[in-house]
Amino acid sequence: MRDSIYSFKNDYSEGAHPNILRALAETNLHQHVGYGEDDFSKRAIALLKEKMDNNNVDIHLVSGGTQANLIVISSILRSFESVIAADTGHINVHETGAIEATGHKVNIIEGKNGKLTPDLVEAVLQQHTDEHMVKPKLVYISNTTEVGTVYKRAELEALYDYCKSKDLLLYMDGARLGSALASHAGDLSLGELSRLVDAFYIGGTKNGALLGEAIILCNDKLKNSFRYSLKQRGALLAKGRLLGIQFLELFKADLFFQLADRANSLATRLSKGIEALGYGFLTESESNQIFPIFPNEVIEELYKSYAFYPWSKIDDHTTSVRLVTSWATSEEAVEAFLRDLKEKSEK
Amino acid sequence: MRDSIYSFKNDYSEGAHPNILRALAETNLHQHVGYGEDDFSKRAIALLKEKMDNNNVDIHLVSGGTQANLIVISSILRSFESVIAADTGHINVHETGAIEATGHKVNIIEGKNGKLTPDLVEAVLQQHTDEHMVKPKLVYISNTTEVGTVYKRAELEALYDYCKSKDLLLYMDGARLGSALASHAGDLSLGELSRLVDAFYIGGTKNGALLGEAIILCNDKLKNSFRYSLKQRGALLAKGRLLGIQFLELFKADLFFQLADRANSLATRLSKGIEALGYGFLTESESNQIFPIFPNEVIEELYKSYAFYPWSKIDDHTTSVRLVTSWATSEEAVEAFLRDLKEKSEK
Amino acid sequence: MRDSIYSFKNDYSEGAHPNILRALAETNLHQHVGYGEDDFSKRAIALLKEKMDNNNVDIHLVSGGTQANLIVISSILRSFESVIAADTGHINVHETGAIEATGHKVNIIEGKNGKLTPDLVEAVLQQHTDEHMVKPKLVYISNTTEVGTVYKRAELEALYDYCKSKDLLLYMDGARLGSALASHAGDLSLGELSRLVDAFYIGGTKNGALLGEAIILCNDKLKNSFRYSLKQRGALLAKGRLLGIQFLELFKADLFFQLADRANSLATRLSKGIEALGYGFLTESESNQIFPIFPNEVIEELYKSYAFYPWSKIDDHTTSVRLVTSWATSEEAVEAFLRDLKEKSEK
Amino acid sequence: MRDSIYSFKNDYSEGAHPNILRALAETNLHQHVGYGEDDFSKRAIALLKEKMDNNNVDIHLVSGGTQANLIVISSILRSFESVIAADTGHINVHETGAIEATGHKVNIIEGKNGKLTPDLVEAVLQQHTDEHMVKPKLVYISNTTEVGTVYKRAELEALYDYCKSKDLLLYMDGARLGSALASHAGDLSLGELSRLVDAFYIGGTKNGALLGEAIILCNDKLKNSFRYSLKQRGALLAKGRLLGIQFLELFKADLFFQLADRANSLATRLSKGIEALGYGFLTESESNQIFPIFPNEVIEELYKSYAFYPWSKIDDHTTSVRLVTSWATSEEAVEAFLRDLKEKSEK
Repeated sequence: MRDSIYSFKNDYSEGAHPNILRALAETNLHQHVGYGEDDFSKRAIALLKEKMDNNNVDIHLVSGGTQANLIVISSILRSFESVIAADTGHINVHETGAIEATGHKVNIIEGKNGKLTPDLVEAVLQQHTDEHMVKPKLVYISNTTEVGTVYKRAELEALYDYCKSKDLLLYMDGARLGSALASHAGDLSLGELSRLVDAFYIGGTKNGALLGEAIILCNDKLKNSFRYSLKQRGALLAKGRLLGIQFLELFKADLFFQLADRANSLATRLSKGIEALGYGFLTESESNQIFPIFPNEVIEELYKSYAFYPWSKIDDHTTSVRLVTSWATSEEAVEAFLRDLKEKSEK
Repeated sequence: MRDSIYSFKNDYSEGAHPNILRALAETNLHQHVGYGEDDFSKRAIALLKEKMDNNNVDIHLVSGGTQANLIVISSILRSFESVIAADTGHINVHETGAIEATGHKVNIIEGKNGKLTPDLVEAVLQQHTDEHMVKPKLVYISNTTEVGTVYKRAELEALYDYCKSKDLLLYMDGARLGSALASHAGDLSLGELSRLVDAFYIGGTKNGALLGEAIILCNDKLKNSFRYSLKQRGALLAKGRLLGIQFLELFKADLFFQLADRANSLATRLSKGIEALGYGFLTESESNQIFPIFPNEVIEELYKSYAFYPWSKIDDHTTSVRLVTSWATSEEAVEAFLRDLKEKSEK
Repeated sequence: MRDSIYSFKNDYSEGAHPNILRALAETNLHQHVGYGEDDFSKRAIALLKEKMDNNNVDIHLVSGGTQANLIVISSILRSFESVIAADTGHINVHETGAIEATGHKVNIIEGKNGKLTPDLVEAVLQQHTDEHMVKPKLVYISNTTEVGTVYKRAELEALYDYCKSKDLLLYMDGARLGSALASHAGDLSLGELSRLVDAFYIGGTKNGALLGEAIILCNDKLKNSFRYSLKQRGALLAKGRLLGIQFLELFKADLFFQLADRANSLATRLSKGIEALGYGFLTESESNQIFPIFPNEVIEELYKSYAFYPWSKIDDHTTSVRLVTSWATSEEAVEAFLRDLKEKSEK
Repeated sequence: MRDSIYSFKNDYSEGAHPNILRALAETNLHQHVGYGEDDFSKRAIALLKEKMDNNNVDIHLVSGGTQANLIVISSILRSFESVIAADTGHINVHETGAIEATGHKVNIIEGKNGKLTPDLVEAVLQQHTDEHMVKPKLVYISNTTEVGTVYKRAELEALYDYCKSKDLLLYMDGARLGSALASHAGDLSLGELSRLVDAFYIGGTKNGALLGEAIILCNDKLKNSFRYSLKQRGALLAKGRLLGIQFLELFKADLFFQLADRANSLATRLSKGIEALGYGFLTESESNQIFPIFPNEVIEELYKSYAFYPWSKIDDHTTSVRLVTSWATSEEAVEAFLRDLKEKSEK
């Protein structure tokens, strides 16, 4: 802990899992070609295909989530085509107009617990009927969502079937996909996922890597010339090995899933403890992000020892906050938080 | 050495200087805020300002050179403004139209040894006289250039004075700035440089870092809201500490300059050895990239033990090649190359 | 009337006011320079400045409204800056993502009767607090609005004052500005308007011209190099005289205002007649667009003789429709519509 | 003639052919739907297909050449794909970076008399070999070229065959296509042309219309959703009838070809007269643009009575100039020019 304030702000407060640092050190002086064509990247990609038991995908490793989103989306869409997203969707608010900067409108709909359904998407299609309006072509979802919820397999199947019936493509932002796949509320495997979307990415940054997201292109039509898009948007790292080594390390002994499971378990411990103290939540606690609702004065007290973000005002007296755990969260911090919350709640 | 072929292809074949890996490990579990606002990044930025004895600059750390170029250039230019570059300039050919993808034309002129001069730029201005043509606004130069040459202080002063007189801005791509500053042919300090351009970047990737370039905004007019541009183009890493830690390590004991000096020295040893064997060069050997001209059959022989890129056909029998050294190049490999060259030349 | 169906669909169903055709014929063989630098355009611009008693504006003539909007907005904004619009705003839905295609997000808020107020804009600013989100910079309003309402001077003053206090710019889409200025509900003059916004355009197409919109840049900061933007977006007509001649004709004897007044009067006659028959309206009838609410079976009957657009479903039995009048609408058609409506209502 | 200076500057100095003005007046009060779906536009499109004896094309009418170019090119290309053009190509220099503003690089090659050949295009392909460079996808040519030359059928066939063999598309800018088709040096019909390119446009502005270019999409792959692109770039005129009426008038009795023939004949008379006086030319005189070379003092004398553009400096004493004729050029002016030239040459 860096100082007396412990942070539950996010899942990228620390560096990388030690295995990754060790692998970087061990391979450091090996000479490799650049720009993602090194052996590490190739082996990582082969391993990922194996893990999803799916050879019919193309995989590309990039640095970050906004980068992944803007490259995938701009690569898929023609200039007048748009992407549909929930109002809470990361591309809507929190990427500084990155999608629009590539020329595309984001059609916003109010999601249900951060999720999209066929009905919600249908409402957007109904409004877009001719060439005086953009042509919705891609549906963007996040898993876990930005409010910590998780898509069930049946939900995803229904959405994907709908998309196919409407000539829409489906793309999943997996910045926190590890947590979604490891969720007690989830029932999807990586392999199933790769058959239920047209493209997605597996987030490394928020699950143990220094940086790195693996873009998975499932639909054959999206695969052609993708490396041109990567290069053009500044996403081909000269030392692409840095990404390959990390994904290799994360997946070679299922570390990725173990880390996600640990993050989820600690979040569950937090949420159950908070619930036991009588507090409610903004959304179901299904992943490594939970959104308890506290009285404002309790929040002020907690700020003295813990860092976390306020999320939304519930009423004049209470606010939901976001608590995030990760592979690196200490059990002691979780216990201390619950102890302190109990004490401050009893005041 | 990964296999029996030793690579002189580039300066990013290996990982990072060991000091960097050590620093990453030592700080790994410290909690820090994300997106470049961590203490490491702040300290690295303060240190860079100190090294250039210039507090009147803004500094931002990003992942790669194409990313730096496209963000700086698109942030500076209005939609109808263009950037002038030498035909050899990296943004012209080797960035997959990254600048054009942000909406801007690159005006190309044939450079002199990869460099631009006031006369060359003037010729472009003469051709662009009204609103039926783009308005050239920015001059892009590389140092070292893509053909290994280095700007002298007087050359840069002349160019910057010219630019100011024409209301043009001057931007330097410093992917290999370390090598330029450490060059026997150069006479510029980092501090002087920061007063002779409007913006530049200091390349880390090709001089000891895993990844990372430091964008330096010198002209006050370019500083406003720059972080918005970073975010929009996908360049704000969640774990920005990864960049901060590396630049801190590179500059805290002048490691950056020592590594560049080592790379240059090995290139000089190579070029002097090659020259002693009677071979000529495409351009002056001033940095860590040299361009000897060899008979084609000698090149074929060398390929059996060394990897390097052919550069340009000189005539039907000879070709210039590019040999690149780095902080990680082994002295043994340099000696072996010269020995093998001598032997193959004597055949 | 082209056939037995009379159209109240819009205000661009006919050609141009006969004066315009006459002027085109009279000047047809005069030789003039191209691209908007002809004498007609210069005289039209001088006349417009005179009509608004404001020499401190720059004026440029273009072909259409979407073109005007995309050029003005993209010329004003830096890449990460956004434009705020009402949900009904033309740039939001009905321009096929033209603004996003130039790289900018449109921030949408639900308007009040199609209008924006300081409070509504403030809500958007509150949500956009740092570089992870776009930076709202421009407020887009339409006058008349897309639902036929008109900004009062006090409303515009309040909005402009607010914008200035927040470093926002204010831009008015004047596709139907003639109707707004001639509205019984309005109290703004063209000259006042030119001092209450940073930029606007005066629509010619919907008020008697074959095509043509006059972009007025009021804020000095927006004037520089604007013709470059025009050319780059394909808006500089070789025979710019076509636009100059038309605006000259429209404004030289205040024809523009007379045509708008006529259109409004006919709309008022329609709305008063409809009201007298006991029908209500979706919004106040303030301009040449009115939105009466009819039973669905009445609408079906009316379709047999009149063309017009359904606007929005009110309930299962009634729908609001849009009726538009113009300078070219025939009084007979208005009377016939009211007669037929009366008859069909009595069934 | 507007004043004592007669202009040979271009072919858009006057208004429209009188037939067009008459047709506009005659149809003026007919009510029609907007945005290019009016009967006039539909009939004009049907007529154009008939004239080229080719029903397998899609046709769209737009306002101007830069608009046509930027819409066609951006509609065809993916973000990393580029367009190849001759250095003299209009999109290279004279459209203010309109193509780059839609995100695409223009690869420039020095043309031969303003024309491209398979060999020239091949040289560009040779230089673009992987994803670090843009992917050339479209070849842009102009007919007539910007230096007044005309593509022969065999030249076009060779280029089109080459393009098909390399998976390149071929697009012809026909701003002055009328003059090319009517050229004594040409041997192409409109119908043949429509089978020898993937897309082209027929320029109306420079051959008798007030404004208007007809985009012809020949390749099926380019047709889908094109009206979305038109709308997004601001090219759908509310009163699209203005374009339909003009093209109908231009083609219904082959007026288009007659006007082009007249322009060419006058240019030929000029060029033969100039040649007879002993002057040479920069390029062959094949169309309505000719480029005689005159002593500078002769040019100064001519400027007293005629307006025209200097084109390029030949040596310290002589300059090539551009003389352009059109459907509206007066025979008297041509004769007067030759008389004056003779007189001034004899001084």
